[in-house]
Amino acid sequence: MDMPLMISAAIRYAAAYHGSTEVVARTIEGDLHRYDYATAHARTQQLANALARLGVKPGDRIGSLAWNTHRHFEMFYGVSGSGAVLHTINPRLFAEQLVYIINHAEDRLLFVDAATLPLAEAIAPRLTTVEHVVMMCEPARMPARTSLPGLLCYDELLAAEPAHYDWPDFDERSASTLCYTSGTTGNPKGVLYSHRSALLVALQIAPMVAMGVPNGAAATLMPMAPMFHGNAWQFPYLAPMLGTRLVLPGRNYEPDKLYELLEGERVTLTCGVPTFWLILTEWLQRSGKKFSTLRTSLSSGSAPPRSLVETMERDHGVQLMQAWGMTEALGGSAATSKPGAADLPFEQRIDARMRSGRALFGNRYRLVDDAGTELPQDGKAVGHLRVKAPWISSAYFKGEGGSAVDEQGWLKTGDLATIDTDGYVSLTDRSKDVIKSGGEWISSIELENVASGHPAVLQAAAIGITHPKWQERPLLVVTLREGAQVTGPELIEFMRGKLASWWLPDAVEFVDQMPLTGTGKLWKLKLREQFKDYVLKT
Amino acid sequence: MDMPLMISAAIRYAAAYHGSTEVVARTIEGDLHRYDYATAHARTQQLANALARLGVKPGDRIGSLAWNTHRHFEMFYGVSGSGAVLHTINPRLFAEQLVYIINHAEDRLLFVDAATLPLAEAIAPRLTTVEHVVMMCEPARMPARTSLPGLLCYDELLAAEPAHYDWPDFDERSASTLCYTSGTTGNPKGVLYSHRSALLVALQIAPMVAMGVPNGAAATLMPMAPMFHGNAWQFPYLAPMLGTRLVLPGRNYEPDKLYELLEGERVTLTCGVPTFWLILTEWLQRSGKKFSTLRTSLSSGSAPPRSLVETMERDHGVQLMQAWGMTEALGGSAATSKPGAADLPFEQRIDARMRSGRALFGNRYRLVDDAGTELPQDGKAVGHLRVKAPWISSAYFKGEGGSAVDEQGWLKTGDLATIDTDGYVSLTDRSKDVIKSGGEWISSIELENVASGHPAVLQAAAIGITHPKWQERPLLVVTLREGAQVTGPELIEFMRGKLASWWLPDAVEFVDQMPLTGTGKLWKLKLREQFKDYVLKT
Repeated sequence: MDMPLMISAAIRYAAAYHGSTEVVARTIEGDLHRYDYATAHARTQQLANALARLGVKPGDRIGSLAWNTHRHFEMFYGVSGSGAVLHTINPRLFAEQLVYIINHAEDRLLFVDAATLPLAEAIAPRLTTVEHVVMMCEPARMPARTSLPGLLCYDELLAAEPAHYDWPDFDERSASTLCYTSGTTGNPKGVLYSHRSALLVALQIAPMVAMGVPNGAAATLMPMAPMFHGNAWQFPYLAPMLGTRLVLPGRNYEPDKLYELLEGERVTLTCGVPTFWLILTEWLQRSGKKFSTLRTSLSSGSAPPRSLVETMERDHGVQLMQAWGMTEALGGSAATSKPGAADLPFEQRIDARMRSGRALFGNRYRLVDDAGTELPQDGKAVGHLRVKAPWISSAYFKGEGGSAVDEQGWLKTGDLATIDTDGYVSLTDRSKDVIKSGGEWISSIELENVASGHPAVLQAAAIGITHPKWQERPLLVVTLREGAQVTGPELIEFMRGKLASWWLPDAVEFVDQMPLTGTGKLWKLKLREQFKDYVLKT
Repeated sequence: MDMPLMISAAIRYAAAYHGSTEVVARTIEGDLHRYDYATAHARTQQLANALARLGVKPGDRIGSLAWNTHRHFEMFYGVSGSGAVLHTINPRLFAEQLVYIINHAEDRLLFVDAATLPLAEAIAPRLTTVEHVVMMCEPARMPARTSLPGLLCYDELLAAEPAHYDWPDFDERSASTLCYTSGTTGNPKGVLYSHRSALLVALQIAPMVAMGVPNGAAATLMPMAPMFHGNAWQFPYLAPMLGTRLVLPGRNYEPDKLYELLEGERVTLTCGVPTFWLILTEWLQRSGKKFSTLRTSLSSGSAPPRSLVETMERDHGVQLMQAWGMTEALGGSAATSKPGAADLPFEQRIDARMRSGRALFGNRYRLVDDAGTELPQDGKAVGHLRVKAPWISSAYFKGEGGSAVDEQGWLKTGDLATIDTDGYVSLTDRSKDVIKSGGEWISSIELENVASGHPAVLQAAAIGITHPKWQERPLLVVTLREGAQVTGPELIEFMRGKLASWWLPDAVEFVDQMPLTGTGKLWKLKLREQFKDYVLKT
């Protein structure tokens, strides 16, 4: 029997078997919205009917400029389930990027929330394909005035429709969501996910959900990662598939609000970048709060400081598990520990957590040198990380932006890494950030990690500066903590002995603020531009 | 990227990421064989090379007449991974059935072990397609004499080959294993499983593996279900995919030997029919033994007595979770409890366990009447159980045996069931076993369960006897426990009040032994033949 893997099956399953299980979401306005999977399913069917009424056809792109709310969750089913493509858009992008990707995707509808409405208003005149903008709220919360003509109300659209829709079966390799990479160079590139890839990745992660709880359905999932980042790591699919409670933080990432959700809603598993946890743990320490249900937080995007991993485990009983992932590779590794890892001494457990994890079934990793020759996985050889998996995108939307994979079909991740004999991946740098000195590679990340260990340092960034003899030498750019002081020579002295001596930066420069990308990452390209004429004293 | 789901990926993954994790198997000779996934992977590659050398081509069927040993495990990869089809054959079938299915499958090679060699010797003259018989043992254990000409030695074949083989990628819907249903009427019918279906079902079960253990890889799996029954519930794939230890019981199901493995090898999850547990718990009670690691036993094939479920949970801390499954439907429901179920009082927890479980994601269940009209899922309406899932076989090998699905594409399970408002399926009877009395259905299983509650009854079977007024009326056929006594009227009196009075059997007959099928199930067809001229006193 040739039955396809369809995303709609997840919400239909949840409604049928976990119909009274809760979905809790913080609205943009700040209050908590509660309903259950049966209600959510009814609303996704109303949404699918509303889209049909607006003339949406299979394959059409529908944009969402929205945070982690229950209506955005509904779009993951109402849009994709009906055969259209949900284009999740990062509201943190700059206006010109937003305009580019919405026009490039040819979004026919654009869904916004109370937080992103002003963005839509600002860019609307430059959007060439959007026919309607839909405000994701109830009628009473529609804006009193807006520059957008004919702004539609999401809840009104749904209220006009029957709560029954026959989810169609179609090719499981059809696109379900579209996500643009926030590239630091060139135009953003669209990555299409399919029904097949989204469900396979969710199935791949599923065993981790059950860890430490009596059964899968007893877990509660909260994606701190936004839904516009790789489908919020498939949590919007995973929770209904397993029938777990789902908690959505809206757009409020203030530590007290996150704690209210994580603890109050008995969350067991969450995911996101380490930044959330840096802020949250500081707040927890100050306020003396603890977690009683949270077990695991999947972490990706950047390496967490060791002290964070230690604090979370020792003081809060939460495992911060690093995963490797990128937009083009929905799945990825995760720090599934080896059997017996739980019995290791604390320090060794943390050592393992500081690596980017070991592959889950379905993923293959390899390292290659610049010439594409495979390198040993001995924990020492640093090479370009390559990944292969059934859910990896090999090309970009509309065929633009070149191929994502190399000649052997392995995804070019842009990461430099080592892989040790246990299979743990350790990222050493981004290929484009590594500092090439005397034919060798100096890891900018390693320099930054060591420098960040100094109590006066808030953030550190290492970049390569052209050098007549060595090709490049490292410059360390630093922002200081409020009221703290350290000199360049003092900082280099602090770093000595913690790194090979030839890795030590040639100079340290202090700045008030680091340039950040639209997704809040350190923008090294900008930093390099800023220091492109910098001359190292020789 | 169009990368297929290939079974070979599981053993390759296990070797790469869990290379030193153990596979423990009891040999047919009785000793324990230990090796690890890295070694197993090397041997599966040798096997794939050996098959190529013997001229095996993709799609060819390779028969295995074997118990749960490490070599049989290797065949799940060496055969299927190379593109050939592993035809697992039930050694408990009668000789004529074995001959029929091996010839029908056109097996080119037949793999046997020390326990099944005599069977192969007995039927070999009637096999029309088998070119070689391979004895799964090391050279030293080859039989001194055999009637089979040119009997090959498995380990010798492997030793001649390199331990490297490039697992090919091909259509994931290609057949991986072939399993004949042990139908009680007509010829056995071949059910083909595909790479896709086997892996999807394994992924579907995976979250249950992690229950109660720190992580998936910390689990230890032991399939008590034989590998010739629906791939041993995908355990041979599941364990390598998650990197868990795998324990294989060989063919020795003596309680002390099972206990030695379950406890000694720290098994956390097992699967099989309740019969194993009836024998094992009796032995445990007698010997005062307990389990310290076993958490869950998935159960299917027949309904376990309530007392067994209670004993396992109360005295041994083991959850006996009923799953629904059949050869045509690899996956199935499993008693994934609803959130909060663990906090229910003991009696209510057991109530839930007595049902056949709730669907896991991917499965849909419905009930229909004789006319195919859908019935309500209210816990009361009894109907024909229908199942839909991406891994269900809709037709049989070579197109023989009719369609397995109804006109709407739902699998005809042959079971009668109720589904309650929580989605729990409760089997009431096999369609062909139900007793039709006065236009109503009497569940033969229900009669048997109640009768079995009498301490003198070893086994009870209810069959319909033609009745001039009521169409059919129930006759209860009973075997007694050694030394125990009960009369027919006493037994009916015992049953009164526990069932609707019109369900009570009209008569009780005592026999020394029940007729059993090749798979050890009660053979009701034979019993009905035996009593076909029985006349009920009116």
